[in-house]
Amino acid sequence: MNSLNDLIARYFSWCNRIEYPEEPRRLYDASRYFLESGGKKIRPILCLLGNDLFGEMSYDSFHAGYAIDLFHNSSLVHDDIIDHAPLRRGRPAIHIKYSLPTAILTGDIFIAYAFAHLNNVREQYRHQIHTQFSRVIIEVCEGQQMDFDLERRELQHVSYQEYLKMITLKTAALMGASIRIGAVIGGADSQEQAYLYEFGKNLGIAFQIYDDYLDAFGEPSETGKQPGGDILENKKTALLIKTWEAGSTSQKKALKNAMSKNGFEKVSAVLELYRNTKVDIWATDKTSEYTQKAFYCLDMITGVTAERKAGLIELTNQLLGRRC
Amino acid sequence: MNSLNDLIARYFSWCNRIEYPEEPRRLYDASRYFLESGGKKIRPILCLLGNDLFGEMSYDSFHAGYAIDLFHNSSLVHDDIIDHAPLRRGRPAIHIKYSLPTAILTGDIFIAYAFAHLNNVREQYRHQIHTQFSRVIIEVCEGQQMDFDLERRELQHVSYQEYLKMITLKTAALMGASIRIGAVIGGADSQEQAYLYEFGKNLGIAFQIYDDYLDAFGEPSETGKQPGGDILENKKTALLIKTWEAGSTSQKKALKNAMSKNGFEKVSAVLELYRNTKVDIWATDKTSEYTQKAFYCLDMITGVTAERKAGLIELTNQLLGRRC
Repeated sequence: MNSLNDLIARYFSWCNRIEYPEEPRRLYDASRYFLESGGKKIRPILCLLGNDLFGEMSYDSFHAGYAIDLFHNSSLVHDDIIDHAPLRRGRPAIHIKYSLPTAILTGDIFIAYAFAHLNNVREQYRHQIHTQFSRVIIEVCEGQQMDFDLERRELQHVSYQEYLKMITLKTAALMGASIRIGAVIGGADSQEQAYLYEFGKNLGIAFQIYDDYLDAFGEPSETGKQPGGDILENKKTALLIKTWEAGSTSQKKALKNAMSKNGFEKVSAVLELYRNTKVDIWATDKTSEYTQKAFYCLDMITGVTAERKAGLIELTNQLLGRRC
Repeated sequence: MNSLNDLIARYFSWCNRIEYPEEPRRLYDASRYFLESGGKKIRPILCLLGNDLFGEMSYDSFHAGYAIDLFHNSSLVHDDIIDHAPLRRGRPAIHIKYSLPTAILTGDIFIAYAFAHLNNVREQYRHQIHTQFSRVIIEVCEGQQMDFDLERRELQHVSYQEYLKMITLKTAALMGASIRIGAVIGGADSQEQAYLYEFGKNLGIAFQIYDDYLDAFGEPSETGKQPGGDILENKKTALLIKTWEAGSTSQKKALKNAMSKNGFEKVSAVLELYRNTKVDIWATDKTSEYTQKAFYCLDMITGVTAERKAGLIELTNQLLGRRC
């Protein structure tokens, strides 16, 4: 059994040994540039914790976790193109720093390397993990398309249910798959795998809604960024969609009006509507609701000691600001 | 043992049964639009022929061939974005007909479905094929990056050796992998697999150089398109690179001058230089040379009857206009 910090340290030290070719230079420079840019490594750590929950740590879960993180990075590189995002992790996105072609190819090659790493998993679990991994990539792509489609629709034609389906595919499914894959390697039975998938999925939903909340109401000292980025872009967050759904006719009108403004005036007008419709409280309630669902699923894993669950609980608390 | 036409018919009939989800609609409409647009299916047929060479046809090679074709289609969808190509197989490219985001996601999801299909291969060969498949995707991405890099360099800084390396990665490696994967399923030993990989790789190099030749000197009645498309775009084909390398100082100067012209005048000036430097003959000689290398490798497969090789020979003749 490993502490969360030990696992994170072991994972980073293991990753640092992985080397990529030098040529073609631009492709691998871009790959290294992106992979070295950090990121919270939530998904590979979930994979390691899934393994750690049931048994001794195996290098299989390092390979699988790394594969998951490579695919996650692939989806970010391609998503930044789709969203015209100039920055990622505080640095120019690949399609800006290198080029659109190199960004497309970097995302593609990450997927190929991900499957290559997965091939290192021992034979006993390889097929099952390969199947789950290709399935979740399909889901994430479907979620990315849905996100793109929802962003192009008028706000009044987007429901919270559709949003929920979109984030389940785009964000939550991969978090579910990450811990389940680790659990497979740890030797979990199919019932335990299913509960852990649900744990990760619900954690992912809570995480995304809380991320939307923080963009509007987070403390810059805590989030490291000025609030309101999503508001300025009219991004269809949980809060925006819910404000439209829950708002009175006059509040709907005020929201449309606020969304047509710019800069600080826009942010403060939208935030006021979020508060008036109590969507701020609704969002933290939803975060708690999905976190509780996640913990319920973790509770259903009865065959392991409470001590073994400590890392997962600690990670959840870190991610959700102890709102659980 | 199956005739080439029987195999092609069986493959198309098998593919027609594969269905994709309906939602997200734009993503799967785009996927179907591209997959239904035809293509010569050289790679999956090579895979089937690799199987057929050694034993009874197995559905494993249909799954593997389909996976290879999905990845090939993925690379075309992304390559059309990279090349700003408006058309593919005579119809608008996905990034034109749908959107850039949908084109990126279609390419991504094709890779995921490719691996999902590969999971259907029987356990005995699955790991080996997975390893070869992820390896060749990496190579194709490297080749695509190299192609992009070469296109941005001045002609005098691009060598035929670099071109050869680029097409080997971008085009020939996948043809080699296609037949080798089929041969694995057919039960070929590692020596036979290596020869067949070399067969496919050399066939792929011959195919690409001949394709460059046809763009300049092909009969419209045979190729179905007006010659000179590559010339109009200053595309760094084997012929253009070789003309620069082989040309005298005055021919180099004339080539640069020709390349700065437009339309018919440009095509005819460049074609004249191709003829003057005898690069037209050189290109057909190179096609023959690589085709002979391919057949040499096929000859080295001594454990099967000549009859079993008939399909591969017929396919090669079809691809290379009986220049072998």
